[in-house]
Amino acid sequence: MRKNYIMTPGPVPISEEVLMEHGRPLMHHRSPEFSKIFIEVTDKLKKFMQTSNDVLILTSSGTGAMEAAVTNTFSVGDKVLVINAGNFGERFKKISAKFGLNVIALDYEWGDNANPADVKKSLDENPDIKGVMVQHSETSTGVINDIEAISKVVKGYPALMIVDAISGIGASELKVDEWSLDIVCGGSQKALSAPTGISFISLSPRACEAIEKSNIPKFYFDLTAAKKYSEKTPPQTPWTPGISIIVAMNKALDMFFEEGRENVYRRHRTLALAVQRACEKLGLELLVKDPGKRGVSVTSINVPEGIDGKLLTKTMRVKYGVTVAGGQGKLTGLIFRIGHLGYVGIFDVLIAISALEFALKEQGWKFELGAGVVEVEKVFMENNYLNE
Amino acid sequence: MRKNYIMTPGPVPISEEVLMEHGRPLMHHRSPEFSKIFIEVTDKLKKFMQTSNDVLILTSSGTGAMEAAVTNTFSVGDKVLVINAGNFGERFKKISAKFGLNVIALDYEWGDNANPADVKKSLDENPDIKGVMVQHSETSTGVINDIEAISKVVKGYPALMIVDAISGIGASELKVDEWSLDIVCGGSQKALSAPTGISFISLSPRACEAIEKSNIPKFYFDLTAAKKYSEKTPPQTPWTPGISIIVAMNKALDMFFEEGRENVYRRHRTLALAVQRACEKLGLELLVKDPGKRGVSVTSINVPEGIDGKLLTKTMRVKYGVTVAGGQGKLTGLIFRIGHLGYVGIFDVLIAISALEFALKEQGWKFELGAGVVEVEKVFMENNYLNE
Repeated sequence: MRKNYIMTPGPVPISEEVLMEHGRPLMHHRSPEFSKIFIEVTDKLKKFMQTSNDVLILTSSGTGAMEAAVTNTFSVGDKVLVINAGNFGERFKKISAKFGLNVIALDYEWGDNANPADVKKSLDENPDIKGVMVQHSETSTGVINDIEAISKVVKGYPALMIVDAISGIGASELKVDEWSLDIVCGGSQKALSAPTGISFISLSPRACEAIEKSNIPKFYFDLTAAKKYSEKTPPQTPWTPGISIIVAMNKALDMFFEEGRENVYRRHRTLALAVQRACEKLGLELLVKDPGKRGVSVTSINVPEGIDGKLLTKTMRVKYGVTVAGGQGKLTGLIFRIGHLGYVGIFDVLIAISALEFALKEQGWKFELGAGVVEVEKVFMENNYLNE
Repeated sequence: MRKNYIMTPGPVPISEEVLMEHGRPLMHHRSPEFSKIFIEVTDKLKKFMQTSNDVLILTSSGTGAMEAAVTNTFSVGDKVLVINAGNFGERFKKISAKFGLNVIALDYEWGDNANPADVKKSLDENPDIKGVMVQHSETSTGVINDIEAISKVVKGYPALMIVDAISGIGASELKVDEWSLDIVCGGSQKALSAPTGISFISLSPRACEAIEKSNIPKFYFDLTAAKKYSEKTPPQTPWTPGISIIVAMNKALDMFFEEGRENVYRRHRTLALAVQRACEKLGLELLVKDPGKRGVSVTSINVPEGIDGKLLTKTMRVKYGVTVAGGQGKLTGLIFRIGHLGYVGIFDVLIAISALEFALKEQGWKFELGAGVVEVEKVFMENNYLNE
């Protein structure tokens, strides 16, 4: 008997309530029964994203929403600024280059985040930049970008502000309207804790204007078609959607609002801090040196000398049932990542750190057994998390 | 208490066994546990499609696979022949035109199917045609195309043979290798009876060669990336896939092989015949006049004069819980469609016809009450279906 615990930055654990909704017999996607849910999910996503902008639902992974943001908004040859501090910054660069955009990249060390002053400099040097793309939470490193500050800078220029908030939104603050974010991408399987397979995207009126002028060919991800179908009575999607996932999202969104936005954020902050302090207590080094740059969705831990990182995560998974993530792109083999995102509570973090302790001991890493789990408990006590 | 019955050409009813697999807690898509299932599903899909070609799994509706077939195989300006006998033929035309192909259309009346001699004529007149696109089952009308005969024609020319088999494969014969089909698209939610959200696509060695030369930009649907990831150890997808749907497909594929290909085909043939004969017995006219052109996945019935088609399907759904489909595109309001595809048995057909009788009576349509359900029973008896 081995229980399984998923502690990655997506997919994340799913509550029994959401799983049960997801497992219901399917409705037809053009039926009034489904339309009712589709309307509810769209409305709740707007509230979730804190926006009165259009929010469209796509059947794809988050990468599909990123592609839709690029191919619907720009035309071949348009100059864009991509803020790149990790694997998903690289992805925005690749997508933009693939569809013929003129990409100016603002590259940072993986583990660092973007400096709004650099964005200002790039925009001053290239006043013809049509859009700025940035990650809210960069899943490959765990840093968080200061989207509010970056957006304030971008607001002084004609460029659109495009945010991949896939692993960030719902875990930490992102005010789409208040911060003037033109396009924001999200996914079903991150802080929302629904199954994988659905992405969503918000479009400001300025983004909608840009979409009308875009000349890049698109069909499946044509947001004009998606918008047109979403405005039908009753609202629909142009193609058959991932019905069971949207139904699951409806429940997941309810659970988000029941817990309360501030409580969800606080939970994520506390869980992240517990993981980070416990890892440091075990003598491990975090990839993101500056605590102010650390996000709350995932923690990247450097694989120390003398430890086989691949074996470490394998031991955690095979012997203890705890799945964590390895590094991506150029950090493959150099870090491992513990996700603490979505339907994750204090004892999930305790389990992850305990499994990490066992796996580290197996490779002879020196630390006092139990130091990690004690630190996890301390963080919860000190932060008064248990009294809520 | 109203029980619900889904009798549309997708989504289709899902067995309890498949629903339970689909409702399981999610595995991580880069874990060995999921890789094992991913390998199994890929192998079973090859067997399902009767091919040794590469089969790639995409997280999208079937339209995504159609787009992938077009954008990965051709270059801007390439001449293609689109066989168009309905809404999904139109879709291939739209996708091809959108991505800059030079589309030669072979348009048929909706309700008719393609004549292989016309295909030969088009290819003779345009020897530079690079690909022929055709529906196996045209979901909007219910006709079936003679893919074997069309492919025999195409084989004499350099063009690639591309088949949208989304609503046909698994319900009626389609031999990918034996019939030399270069690209074939399928979906999770049709004959396979899994939830919506996954499509799959097979690629012959000739198709793979064409893919290397294609210059149309693509990213999410880049089949070269999908192929590269599918060849990793262990096999993966480039982006986060619809995990729960793939897990459900694994069970659905097992159930297909347990029932046996010939038995599944026979079941679909018999169910289709029962629906068609019962409708005629009720004095209704089928859209597809020639019985030889009728497919087995869905039956299109003309809305007779004096009957409000929209009200008819609404009555069936609201009062009797039986969801059937309306017409699509230019047949909207003129036909309704009863799906008999996937996890559908003889009593599902009996229920659909019974609900149709009640709804017809309500609008004063003249027929002997029960004539439809009696005919359904007769078809099963005459075809010796009950003795198996």
